[in-house]
Amino acid sequence: MKCIVCKNPTDLKVPRHNAAFCVEHFNEHVLRQVSQVIKKFKMIKKNDRVLLGVSGGKDSMGAWKILTNLGYNVLAVHINNGFGEFSQKSENVVRVFAERNNLPLEVYSFEELAGFSLQRAQKHTRKPICSLCGTLKRYLLNRLAFDLECDVIATGHNLDDECAFLLGNVLHWQMGYLKRQYPILKEEKGLVRKIKPLARLTDYEMSLYVKTFNVDIVENECPYSRGATSHYYKDILNALETQFPGSKSFFYFGFLKRLKPFLFADKEEEKGEDLRYCSECGYKTLREDKCFVCALKEKIYTETRTGDSSGM
Amino acid sequence: MKCIVCKNPTDLKVPRHNAAFCVEHFNEHVLRQVSQVIKKFKMIKKNDRVLLGVSGGKDSMGAWKILTNLGYNVLAVHINNGFGEFSQKSENVVRVFAERNNLPLEVYSFEELAGFSLQRAQKHTRKPICSLCGTLKRYLLNRLAFDLECDVIATGHNLDDECAFLLGNVLHWQMGYLKRQYPILKEEKGLVRKIKPLARLTDYEMSLYVKTFNVDIVENECPYSRGATSHYYKDILNALETQFPGSKSFFYFGFLKRLKPFLFADKEEEKGEDLRYCSECGYKTLREDKCFVCALKEKIYTETRTGDSSGM
Repeated sequence: MKCIVCKNPTDLKVPRHNAAFCVEHFNEHVLRQVSQVIKKFKMIKKNDRVLLGVSGGKDSMGAWKILTNLGYNVLAVHINNGFGEFSQKSENVVRVFAERNNLPLEVYSFEELAGFSLQRAQKHTRKPICSLCGTLKRYLLNRLAFDLECDVIATGHNLDDECAFLLGNVLHWQMGYLKRQYPILKEEKGLVRKIKPLARLTDYEMSLYVKTFNVDIVENECPYSRGATSHYYKDILNALETQFPGSKSFFYFGFLKRLKPFLFADKEEEKGEDLRYCSECGYKTLREDKCFVCALKEKIYTETRTGDSSGM
Repeated sequence: MKCIVCKNPTDLKVPRHNAAFCVEHFNEHVLRQVSQVIKKFKMIKKNDRVLLGVSGGKDSMGAWKILTNLGYNVLAVHINNGFGEFSQKSENVVRVFAERNNLPLEVYSFEELAGFSLQRAQKHTRKPICSLCGTLKRYLLNRLAFDLECDVIATGHNLDDECAFLLGNVLHWQMGYLKRQYPILKEEKGLVRKIKPLARLTDYEMSLYVKTFNVDIVENECPYSRGATSHYYKDILNALETQFPGSKSFFYFGFLKRLKPFLFADKEEEKGEDLRYCSECGYKTLREDKCFVCALKEKIYTETRTGDSSGM
């Protein structure tokens, strides 16, 4: 195979683009995909301080390197979930990368930040732990963004993640999630802007990227993600992509272009949603009084006061 | 296993409803599903004459028996596609059923009705033959409904067909098709009402129905349907249904309930669409001048006049 740019021999192929790249031009390809998506969706303004959530996995570690190389002012934040050896390894990977590359990093323990452990929180909700972890970390990162004076929160969600989420939302017609699914969620009262700069890169491209540039990552999946429905949807979408190349990209970006305009049509409901904020912390919520996190915290504290602390 | 109604032993199980039925109560179950969907979507009015398109397959043959048993005034119409032995067998199955049950039936040849064969039409369009056949037969059945003085056209599309069509429309965000996908399309200028009374029954239930009541059907699939994308989507949906029972029903009826209201929001575009009719035959069309069928006919006739009849 030859690099489609410089014609030098290479073994880095990207079937989705029907292309192969040498190391230099693969790097260029990846940076271009990210830089174009940032520009198209007006994700980052000049002088913005970007809080990047880094887990230690291929996507966020890759995003860290990419955004830094693109010259953005990135502050990486790692939240240790307290999942034993897996979390310890993850924290280590993140710390070593920051040190070696002399990059700013803040590390927190989930339990110290939230006031309770993820395992304990799970006993008080029917949400699967993956989804619970996502909700709680989004909440904590938003609070940290204010404390650390950041203008925008970036996460490592890639095209495969967005497609799997979209497929699940479509199969269950989760209209609330469909309305909010977008590569950028603009800032509003109490909420920092949220962006997904890897929206045009796949799992495969990100794996290839971190491997090619020797970025250390935690190879194993989070032990709590086993059997997650998103894996099942990813399998369906990967099979579809093999059968009909370009399917994933069309599914996600077609959704943004073609369906999205219809979902913004009912302004009334949107307006109603905008008006509700948590009475405790001010976070935007669809609930009547307290947001999901404050309500959860209250349940956990009530349990502690009544003496049942078996969940700790 | 026992029938959930009368507790008599049976081997007719319907996993989607987590139920088993004896022959009598399975019949009742099927009639109830159809009768409820007809009522919910106001498909058939009292004294309506129903034109039912019958291919000879399990769905339309089952629908013939079901609608007749429910007491509707059904005129079955079979269009012989001219696909050699397969089409001959299909016509035969349909004729024998009508004769044995003393039911009204009209049989036509596709070529005589359209003025050209399906094979010939295919050379003038990029549509896959399955989709071309569907489009042309919808057109011909609509014309026949006027000629035969019928008020409504019923087809044998079942829940699996609708789900596969929906999945394809969603993966490609075919907004035009999504707007029109519904168990009933109301009558309007030049168009007879169209209904899908099997929308709540699956492939599996229809197979079980014709087997249980010894309805003769053409067992083989149409030779031109091999490799059709809809089969691929059905496989995905069947796997999904096995993993998460109820998925198909939720996907289709959730779409009708939750997404549909958004799609009707842009009245302007709908209005624009309503105004266009074919200059030749008056059929509703999204095209500028002639509808797809009249434009196709013109192409074929031009070819015949210029002497190139190799496509016959």
